[in-house]
Amino acid sequence: MSNGDIFLGEVIGTAILILFGAGVCAAVTLRFSKARASGWIVIAFGWGFAVLAGAYTAAPLSGGHLNPAVTVGVAVDTGVWDKVWVYLLGQMVGAMFGAVLAYLVYLAQFQANVRKEGTTEGTADEPTPTLGIFSTIPEIRNPVANLITEIIATIALVLPILAFGRNTGIGIGQIPGEEAGVYGSGISVLLVSFLVVGIGLSLGGPTGYAINPARDLGPRIVHTFLPIPNKGTSDWGYAWIPVVGPLVGGILAGLVYNAAF
Amino acid sequence: MSNGDIFLGEVIGTAILILFGAGVCAAVTLRFSKARASGWIVIAFGWGFAVLAGAYTAAPLSGGHLNPAVTVGVAVDTGVWDKVWVYLLGQMVGAMFGAVLAYLVYLAQFQANVRKEGTTEGTADEPTPTLGIFSTIPEIRNPVANLITEIIATIALVLPILAFGRNTGIGIGQIPGEEAGVYGSGISVLLVSFLVVGIGLSLGGPTGYAINPARDLGPRIVHTFLPIPNKGTSDWGYAWIPVVGPLVGGILAGLVYNAAF
Amino acid sequence: MSNGDIFLGEVIGTAILILFGAGVCAAVTLRFSKARASGWIVIAFGWGFAVLAGAYTAAPLSGGHLNPAVTVGVAVDTGVWDKVWVYLLGQMVGAMFGAVLAYLVYLAQFQANVRKEGTTEGTADEPTPTLGIFSTIPEIRNPVANLITEIIATIALVLPILAFGRNTGIGIGQIPGEEAGVYGSGISVLLVSFLVVGIGLSLGGPTGYAINPARDLGPRIVHTFLPIPNKGTSDWGYAWIPVVGPLVGGILAGLVYNAAF
Amino acid sequence: MSNGDIFLGEVIGTAILILFGAGVCAAVTLRFSKARASGWIVIAFGWGFAVLAGAYTAAPLSGGHLNPAVTVGVAVDTGVWDKVWVYLLGQMVGAMFGAVLAYLVYLAQFQANVRKEGTTEGTADEPTPTLGIFSTIPEIRNPVANLITEIIATIALVLPILAFGRNTGIGIGQIPGEEAGVYGSGISVLLVSFLVVGIGLSLGGPTGYAINPARDLGPRIVHTFLPIPNKGTSDWGYAWIPVVGPLVGGILAGLVYNAAF
Repeated sequence: MSNGDIFLGEVIGTAILILFGAGVCAAVTLRFSKARASGWIVIAFGWGFAVLAGAYTAAPLSGGHLNPAVTVGVAVDTGVWDKVWVYLLGQMVGAMFGAVLAYLVYLAQFQANVRKEGTTEGTADEPTPTLGIFSTIPEIRNPVANLITEIIATIALVLPILAFGRNTGIGIGQIPGEEAGVYGSGISVLLVSFLVVGIGLSLGGPTGYAINPARDLGPRIVHTFLPIPNKGTSDWGYAWIPVVGPLVGGILAGLVYNAAF
Repeated sequence: MSNGDIFLGEVIGTAILILFGAGVCAAVTLRFSKARASGWIVIAFGWGFAVLAGAYTAAPLSGGHLNPAVTVGVAVDTGVWDKVWVYLLGQMVGAMFGAVLAYLVYLAQFQANVRKEGTTEGTADEPTPTLGIFSTIPEIRNPVANLITEIIATIALVLPILAFGRNTGIGIGQIPGEEAGVYGSGISVLLVSFLVVGIGLSLGGPTGYAINPARDLGPRIVHTFLPIPNKGTSDWGYAWIPVVGPLVGGILAGLVYNAAF
Repeated sequence: MSNGDIFLGEVIGTAILILFGAGVCAAVTLRFSKARASGWIVIAFGWGFAVLAGAYTAAPLSGGHLNPAVTVGVAVDTGVWDKVWVYLLGQMVGAMFGAVLAYLVYLAQFQANVRKEGTTEGTADEPTPTLGIFSTIPEIRNPVANLITEIIATIALVLPILAFGRNTGIGIGQIPGEEAGVYGSGISVLLVSFLVVGIGLSLGGPTGYAINPARDLGPRIVHTFLPIPNKGTSDWGYAWIPVVGPLVGGILAGLVYNAAF
Repeated sequence: MSNGDIFLGEVIGTAILILFGAGVCAAVTLRFSKARASGWIVIAFGWGFAVLAGAYTAAPLSGGHLNPAVTVGVAVDTGVWDKVWVYLLGQMVGAMFGAVLAYLVYLAQFQANVRKEGTTEGTADEPTPTLGIFSTIPEIRNPVANLITEIIATIALVLPILAFGRNTGIGIGQIPGEEAGVYGSGISVLLVSFLVVGIGLSLGGPTGYAINPARDLGPRIVHTFLPIPNKGTSDWGYAWIPVVGPLVGGILAGLVYNAAF
């Protein structure tokens, strides 16, 4: 895989990931969305199928990491670090691009996020805070506990992915030309998608499960600059936790995998 | 594949798609349905498994496109346009046929869509508008924003489908006689089904995700003529958006795919 | 496959189908169940995974039909009728056995189905009607409309199953010794399971989707004889519709499949 | 497979199982969780994907049993008992370790489980009982009925798993070096995961479906010792039922499987 293919694959794949992922948060959060208030099951499956859509599109170009924690975990495991920067660059560019796409899909909804006199829906005359559509917000602000949550949740993502890579001879997605990849990729992407649904259902309660530095940081940058009415804070004081926690988790998963398997 | 097989496959497959798709909208919308008010998760999985049912039935005959945006996206990518009209004709006929089937499944419910004196359910004495069972209605009527939503959501459908076609050497479903199709088809249809669930969850909030001109236009024609009591408007003023948006999205997906992969 | 294997496979498989299927209806219906009032999505996925559990257990013995409509549809398609009676006998015995198992799982809940003075839950001091746990009940009692619903919903089950049989060279589940069956079975059972989820979500609203004569008739017989407190009517006046409708649907699916594919 | 690999695989796999499983119970139960009160569908899918995550990580080391009832059922079927103790030891250690991990993920939520004056959420000023996050509690306390429920539900787990082992030549997960395992493992783990979702939806209502002695006993020990504020009883009087019931169910499943297949 050339650097160009890796970069392109990660940009497209991560953009699709965030388009769907920020999309489902917008769908559940914003008034004037058909899916408003449809609950945690929608959020969790939405993010899972975001991985499905993004990873299997990116697979032929880059293998479909879409997540610096995965890239770093693979590098710790394999000892190969020379293409890590290309992956990370593609993931950040893609995450920002995807956040803009999600904003465009919900453009009319964002523009309607103003005080509406005379509407009859519940709290319709209060604008909705919008950061939760783009980035994660903890339920209880506690840096140590929030870090622990993100570290363990990321290990629970990366360790199974590494184990499955051993099972099939591939990472995520397929590598063109490898026989195993042709069917392996479909199954592997599907399993990783349901794994992500499971992480959302089980481990997402405290912090909203960033488990991916690009997924949180890229959209937070975009949120800072987008002209959304009443968008509320971008909460940069919390921004380091969903970056550091997942990176630590990815590294630990690589170390555990190397020691145990 | 002969023109006859393609036509027949697309008629049967698209009819099943709309039977299930309009069916789930009826299930959630109509009073006297066991699934009434069961929420967005039901809508999204219902449409996803509608694709599963339709595409894997149609696959041996036509490959199971069931959607002009997919057919046009494949044509832009491959440069082969000579059978496109057969696909589109089959899709329109199938979509209208499927809408009639869904009407028949919910016949008693539609006939009961009249003011009922003396019932005790919520708004039971107001008839339910029925267009939303057949075709899409935007939450906020804004042609530019609605078009953008449909274009991006359709790209998010067709680009992964094209990428997956490359991964397995097939479009959707299987082509008889190709070795890869035997397993490839099952997995590929399943992945596309979950992709459609994901689009519903994530990108369906603003416009109800037509992402398929035949899915919206065919049932809208049928809605115009069916003798449903208190059926309400067929809203022809909006009808061009779920046709033009998905076609533009399909073309763009074909162009992006050709350039990037 | 010997008659003994077919009988045993269908008894075990259909018993598991009804254990899970009647189980999920009990789970959602009965007070003192952790899943009470958890909605239509639970019912639909519960029945879908009931097929998964039953069909893949029965597959090595009988192919896992579990449904007279499937057996009849296959017979119409292939013209082979000599083992149909063995399948049907096994399905009826299995369905009755499975209904008893579901009753045993919810034994304490059924025994508690009496007027409880002084409880505080919603309608807790009214006994719950129990037929809906065992057999289907239409929302609107209209024999013609109910029959149409069951016929179309069964075609939507059997036609895709037959088409998929052609795709992989097998019916449902696997036939031991056939190479294709080894992986094909897993995928095929999974697809049929999601198809059944889809039928529940989309087409179950009017009649509760029997789509299987054994699934409805066997448990209704059991309901007639079980010593459940306050069990309410077994509604034998409706019992012919979920038998005749699915049989007609299975035959029509076999005819359409033979003509079209 | 060496004893060391089996032990390590079962520790890691069962720890992941309980991390996700106790995690989803915490997610739905605790206030200040984003998934609070999100319903039975979340619980059932959460435990299903817990099996997915744990079993496919453990598969290359131990085959991924994660459950004494599965291990005993396999031993009854095969007559090979010499490694059973290694499996059981690994499962108990892993279950306790996983319960501690789930506690750490929800650390801030557990610490906040105190009377909060002046909050406005529903019953927010009453502490939440926490045993249900770690171990099962019956809805109706009735030893005979509870035992029957756990026995039948465990047969419904182990019998299909054994049947599927025959279908593919493997138990659960893959055995390294066996050709069939490469694709078989992915599908098999996925099917078992959905089977567990189905058991939760259909058979979990009366007792909360332990169906696994290690899953219930390990976390109950941990609950007894963890310093959780207002944690409530560890209910040791009930603890034997989710141990004995699943073991009896696993043995019966092995016997039925041996006799029928």
